[in-house]
Amino acid sequence: MTAHERILLATTGWNPGAWLQVFRRECPDRQTVTEPDGPADPSIRYAVVWKHAPGSLARLPNLRAIFSLGAGVDHVYLDPALPDVPVIRIVSADLTMRMTEYVVWQVLDHARQGPAYRAQQQQRKWRELPQPAAASLTVGIMGLGVLGTDAAGKLGNIGFRIAGWSRNEKRIAGIACHHGAAGLDAFLGESDIVVVLLPLTVETRGIIDASLVARMKRPTPLGGPVLINAGRGGLQVESDILTALDDGTLMAASLDVFENEPLAAESRLWTHPRVTLTPHIAATSDPARLVPELLREMENLERGRPVKGLVNGRAGY
Amino acid sequence: MTAHERILLATTGWNPGAWLQVFRRECPDRQTVTEPDGPADPSIRYAVVWKHAPGSLARLPNLRAIFSLGAGVDHVYLDPALPDVPVIRIVSADLTMRMTEYVVWQVLDHARQGPAYRAQQQQRKWRELPQPAAASLTVGIMGLGVLGTDAAGKLGNIGFRIAGWSRNEKRIAGIACHHGAAGLDAFLGESDIVVVLLPLTVETRGIIDASLVARMKRPTPLGGPVLINAGRGGLQVESDILTALDDGTLMAASLDVFENEPLAAESRLWTHPRVTLTPHIAATSDPARLVPELLREMENLERGRPVKGLVNGRAGY
Repeated sequence: MTAHERILLATTGWNPGAWLQVFRRECPDRQTVTEPDGPADPSIRYAVVWKHAPGSLARLPNLRAIFSLGAGVDHVYLDPALPDVPVIRIVSADLTMRMTEYVVWQVLDHARQGPAYRAQQQQRKWRELPQPAAASLTVGIMGLGVLGTDAAGKLGNIGFRIAGWSRNEKRIAGIACHHGAAGLDAFLGESDIVVVLLPLTVETRGIIDASLVARMKRPTPLGGPVLINAGRGGLQVESDILTALDDGTLMAASLDVFENEPLAAESRLWTHPRVTLTPHIAATSDPARLVPELLREMENLERGRPVKGLVNGRAGY
Repeated sequence: MTAHERILLATTGWNPGAWLQVFRRECPDRQTVTEPDGPADPSIRYAVVWKHAPGSLARLPNLRAIFSLGAGVDHVYLDPALPDVPVIRIVSADLTMRMTEYVVWQVLDHARQGPAYRAQQQQRKWRELPQPAAASLTVGIMGLGVLGTDAAGKLGNIGFRIAGWSRNEKRIAGIACHHGAAGLDAFLGESDIVVVLLPLTVETRGIIDASLVARMKRPTPLGGPVLINAGRGGLQVESDILTALDDGTLMAASLDVFENEPLAAESRLWTHPRVTLTPHIAATSDPARLVPELLREMENLERGRPVKGLVNGRAGY
């Protein structure tokens, strides 16, 4: 890339200031801008996006690739006028580790009965609850990409049994792998805690619905099945989850993502006694760590070397 | 051991029923009893104890060893008339894994700001908090025995930096080890979260006091230092901890053990907004897993083979 070829940082819903600063520090030779010089700016070579304005990339004549800030690329494909250039996602080691922290945290909080012990503390109640060991609980992970595989390894290291489900067949040491629609019932039937780390695609939209929840394992050593969604809000049907929590089909849920974000103040999820709710914080990208990885991928692309995060446009991940 | 040599299961504060059942199943050749036939019962060969009545073992003429149910043996040495036979503690793999579950759970709950996010949920507040990665936090572990070393390994696997402190010098890969009174300040100065897994001995009683808390690291990436005590309640001075929480010297604490258990209903620890309190449940021994290990140790002793859990009476652990 020559100095007059520029990077467009196109985000909505965030303040891009911290990102711009890191781009300018790590990549001083070329300009990074948040607005092109008009919709057909010939200087823009790469777009680095998070929920960019639909149509805003359509006429850039020299755009070579689109980089997604974050592991999910569903936000990129929301643009009906997306230009036909490679889409590359950056699954940084930093983001992966943060996601695994979140997943292990929430799995342990349910496995060790955090909600029940916090309620007992409020009542000044000293009572030991029967406690299954990690080795007698199976954590089922939906989505066996970089994030799911990393979380599985670290949960396995703590002692949990691990099952996994993915669209296509996978074989991963230490994980009882299932795949496809045909494998979903077996997967759900053996998972005491289900962790959702799927990409949001036309196939997975709304996959966590009444039908899926009804097929989850019960009883479990913890009383009933637990759902953890740290993937995308569009994977879940919140009204179905609430009904399942109300009638006991689902024992508890930890939700970091929502159909609409920020979650509306009137949603019953905020106050449901068996919901742990976090504001899409499971794995926030750290510009200081992600930008260097992104620049490395740009360089790989420039030099015709393999690019790790190239998205299969048809699959949507 | 011959069939007429019996095992005495001497506990207070628990119902020994589940334990007796497992002893009888795993060791059908000899009797396990909860009461000797008089204070000088010659048939008692081994005592398996949890807070046994002081003096109750003093006159058993054929007692060969005392086994402690649990990793800590402080409860054994509370008996001023303890007979002069070997004391053996069983640190079962099951107990170790349960303790590590607890430690990882509580470390992540603080590192990922669980208390703050739960408070935000109650207020229906959607707000992301600045989040240091695990790799920018140091977890300091006091006590580098079987439990501390296992927790360190699994916390390190998740990405935390690990420091350690022990009475005597240790060298453990992946842990910045400190030791002795002279090493305590350096250890405290680098630990953002301090996890206490020390044995309770004359040297460690009350070690978590105002002076120790005042020497903890501050500021930290989480705002202030966090204390997690899953060792023994006698290690802590609860009035000092409360003062430090009130004046902000200590940012938060997770306490599983207390000076007196069950914790009195009037203790301010129950309701302190920055205390996570659990009723001594970090690592409960599972008789189905512990009894076989205990019987194996008895057999090692019988056959003159090395016994793993032999306690150094002078050190008290």
